[in-house]
Amino acid sequence: MSEKRLSFDLAVKDPWTPDEGLFALNPSGELPILVSDNEHVLADAQAICEYLEETEPEPVLIGRTAETRAETRRLVTWFGAKFQSEVTDMIAGEKLVKRLTGGAPDSRFVRAGKSNINTHLSYIAWLTERRSWLAGDSLTWADLAAAAQLSLIDYTGDVPWGDHPLAKDWYARVKSRPSMRPILNDVVQGIPAHPDYANLDF
Amino acid sequence: MSEKRLSFDLAVKDPWTPDEGLFALNPSGELPILVSDNEHVLADAQAICEYLEETEPEPVLIGRTAETRAETRRLVTWFGAKFQSEVTDMIAGEKLVKRLTGGAPDSRFVRAGKSNINTHLSYIAWLTERRSWLAGDSLTWADLAAAAQLSLIDYTGDVPWGDHPLAKDWYARVKSRPSMRPILNDVVQGIPAHPDYANLDF
Repeated sequence: MSEKRLSFDLAVKDPWTPDEGLFALNPSGELPILVSDNEHVLADAQAICEYLEETEPEPVLIGRTAETRAETRRLVTWFGAKFQSEVTDMIAGEKLVKRLTGGAPDSRFVRAGKSNINTHLSYIAWLTERRSWLAGDSLTWADLAAAAQLSLIDYTGDVPWGDHPLAKDWYARVKSRPSMRPILNDVVQGIPAHPDYANLDF
Repeated sequence: MSEKRLSFDLAVKDPWTPDEGLFALNPSGELPILVSDNEHVLADAQAICEYLEETEPEPVLIGRTAETRAETRRLVTWFGAKFQSEVTDMIAGEKLVKRLTGGAPDSRFVRAGKSNINTHLSYIAWLTERRSWLAGDSLTWADLAAAAQLSLIDYTGDVPWGDHPLAKDWYARVKSRPSMRPILNDVVQGIPAHPDYANLDF
């Protein structure tokens, strides 16, 4: 929303303990949810992004041709579903969510996530060797979806940036955008961020 | 695509045994994939539907306002992700995919899926009591996404239609559309469909 230059208020909700209020807004109990100025309730990350794209077209974050938009959407699903289940659930799910919910991390999942992330970083490198940004020649929701996942893994210092210089170059560009600043200031209660988490020169 | 009155050729691919050809078209190895007339390759179901909506706007299958489109997209994710993991993976994954890949169905998963489906059928009833179709007053991708999941469960006769008359009314309307006819003629090799699978008066 900052990339769209929209102002907004954030409300903190724990997705692992959905309450009645959350189910009333979204029957799936999932986040994110957007309540618009006219009190319209929108749920599902992709539906919210498409809605923002339709109602606030500039700056364009989805691409200017049908083919680029398809590529943006394919990559949003890639990072929101594939990266999420292969890496984020394995590392952040174990190291952050389990800590917050009173469980103990299972090191087998963490190891699997740390192995799986390499394919994704190589894919980011492959894409950015061919294009300025992941889906084309300008920043799109695909870059934001990928950065949202990676910043979580970066919080615990588990992204092997040294082995993936091109992916690192891309992430450095995303990280330096003003829209990322509040995210880099985020703190998970009781778990300090890795020293390089908010460092723009990592 | 039939609802969009587009002609197309189908190619059968097994998503559980992705080959080099499949990975070349979609690096995630997932289906569906659409190769357009100008040889452009599109992957990811939602990206393909949005592309068809942009390039073939009539008939509209996504809704005519930003709010209805957001609702369509929310429900497409609901059925494509939540229903898929809570019901389809549990029932069709065990009874159909495992049979095809040489495994034995685990009855605990099948039982869980048969229990979970009731919430989804109640939700379909709740939505269609308020609207003609799932996302609004005309058929959208949401109805097609839901019917795609349900027809798979219906193949093995595991949808408790008798307990959910409003959901059944909705499915009867989808089932009677000409676009559904080839799907109702589909046969999973070695596993006969339940007698009511293709029956419009079930």
